[in-house]
Amino acid sequence: MKKLINDPDHVVRESLEGFAAAHPDLVRVSFDPTYVVRADGVPDGRVGVLSGGGSGHEPMHNGFVGRGMLDAACPGEVFTSPTPDQMLAATQAVDAGAGVLHLVKNYTGDVMNFEMAEEMGEGEGIDVRSVLIDDDVAVEDSTYTAGRRGVGGTVLIEKLCGAAADAGHTLDEIADLARACNDEVRSMGMALTSCTVPSAGEPTFDLGENEIEIGIGIHGEPGRDRIPLESADEIVERLMEPILSDLPFKEGDDVLLFVNGMGATPIMELYLCYRKALQLAEAHGLTVVRNLVGPYITSLEMAGLSITILRMNERRTALWDAPVHTPGLRWGR
Amino acid sequence: MKKLINDPDHVVRESLEGFAAAHPDLVRVSFDPTYVVRADGVPDGRVGVLSGGGSGHEPMHNGFVGRGMLDAACPGEVFTSPTPDQMLAATQAVDAGAGVLHLVKNYTGDVMNFEMAEEMGEGEGIDVRSVLIDDDVAVEDSTYTAGRRGVGGTVLIEKLCGAAADAGHTLDEIADLARACNDEVRSMGMALTSCTVPSAGEPTFDLGENEIEIGIGIHGEPGRDRIPLESADEIVERLMEPILSDLPFKEGDDVLLFVNGMGATPIMELYLCYRKALQLAEAHGLTVVRNLVGPYITSLEMAGLSITILRMNERRTALWDAPVHTPGLRWGR
Repeated sequence: MKKLINDPDHVVRESLEGFAAAHPDLVRVSFDPTYVVRADGVPDGRVGVLSGGGSGHEPMHNGFVGRGMLDAACPGEVFTSPTPDQMLAATQAVDAGAGVLHLVKNYTGDVMNFEMAEEMGEGEGIDVRSVLIDDDVAVEDSTYTAGRRGVGGTVLIEKLCGAAADAGHTLDEIADLARACNDEVRSMGMALTSCTVPSAGEPTFDLGENEIEIGIGIHGEPGRDRIPLESADEIVERLMEPILSDLPFKEGDDVLLFVNGMGATPIMELYLCYRKALQLAEAHGLTVVRNLVGPYITSLEMAGLSITILRMNERRTALWDAPVHTPGLRWGR
Repeated sequence: MKKLINDPDHVVRESLEGFAAAHPDLVRVSFDPTYVVRADGVPDGRVGVLSGGGSGHEPMHNGFVGRGMLDAACPGEVFTSPTPDQMLAATQAVDAGAGVLHLVKNYTGDVMNFEMAEEMGEGEGIDVRSVLIDDDVAVEDSTYTAGRRGVGGTVLIEKLCGAAADAGHTLDEIADLARACNDEVRSMGMALTSCTVPSAGEPTFDLGENEIEIGIGIHGEPGRDRIPLESADEIVERLMEPILSDLPFKEGDDVLLFVNGMGATPIMELYLCYRKALQLAEAHGLTVVRNLVGPYITSLEMAGLSITILRMNERRTALWDAPVHTPGLRWGR
């Protein structure tokens, strides 16, 4: 295992210390329990938006805390769910009287712990809504999941919900937005190489010299097929076909096309794949009105990519275009 | 070789097609000869800022074309200098009557071709200034270089010069700024793994299972030492010591600290290394007033990092904070 780490048990802690030191204008990091909140706090009467999950997917979720996206994130150990006490402390920190939305990726540990945190938050008098994200079309159930896994759609939903909170929408309205987006977003990923969890010290899975995994999960959990290496265009077709055929909306619709790097994929290759994905989306009758290309939901040093398509409309496009300023995603107009 | 590509000879072209399709609001890509310019053009009477070099270091340089940074970039084939005709065409495209600054990383091919382009530009009546960037303290001469190599400092100088052009500074003033920054910036990098050039089809160099290369170049060219794997803190010390001892400025100065991922390094590891680099900078008496953490000048899928320290002052900090909106680096305030 070659990694830029010290003691494998301290990776998350030491990384968060560096993260906090790098971005004091945007985030505050608390330890015991561990959570990240926006530095400027949530204004009175505004909804708080929170997410969390295992570490190792950076910039998601910590890197999306700031202005115009998440108000809080709860990082677990690498590929391990955060605990309910982390979630409760973060929920309390970003409750400004209008309630807190929990965005939960569909993995068994996350779901269980967020359910407990929701109850604990309600017990403290905080209005908590929880929305499950399960956009991965690759498999129906998987190693850590009953039902579809939550993957790339999470990044997009976090952006839109953060913008909606900034715009003063209510907790119910933002929860409805998250659910509606989750109903209309689909993703699928693939891997060229494995990732290595620091505490495990060896690759999560083995792929042959010319083998790739189609439908990979973001923790290296198995996908649909293990096949010989193909051209980028063929691989993109293999990801786009299941996404397009599963879309619950019709030709002529506007979409956001997101080509995500798994961690070790050169930017050059992501744009090369975006080119093909765009051609296929257009051939399917979709209009790509917005896009995102880059490593935003990663699996440590895995090489590979995922593709996500989200239906857009006027409201979602306006929320997408709203200013965002976080360590991992930011723009201004 | 496992890569997300089609024909190795078409990687740069197909990637640029995807890049152009993804960012029509920010860039225009021309082919024959190949160059990238900002979509909204250079306003009359404003200096144009141009850079270029081999592809494979994305987001540098193409990803830094837009508003508030580069006006044009000339991408060569992977790790291969662009040609003078590319540079001339791009220079002509961004000349708005106030001249064009060429920011040139110190590699023999780039230097030679940019010199020719400068002459050709002057022959066309365009006022061209060229500034050489050579911030890498690892080696005095190297495979592709007489003198020190140009690395991470390039990203920072491109940002500052782009902001200065936006602020209406003259060609001489911006060239002076670039030279002054180059005099006060130092970098050094290391690799855990090699990169693979698509047309070569095999890793550029071999590292043993527990071996790392200290002082690596951004094309995989040899550095100072090949040593057994160490802890992240020890590795960061090995990079920071030569940088700090070479700084031509004194304790008490303000600096920007840039921790750069080489391509395959998890963001989590970059922040973990930032933590240690910050501690060492502060112990050396420097005040880190700004920072940048992430993969900005990469070497395809190489795992590793580089560290860059640039002296800051009031003017540079204001230019750093100025809005920037490019595919690879953007923020707004």
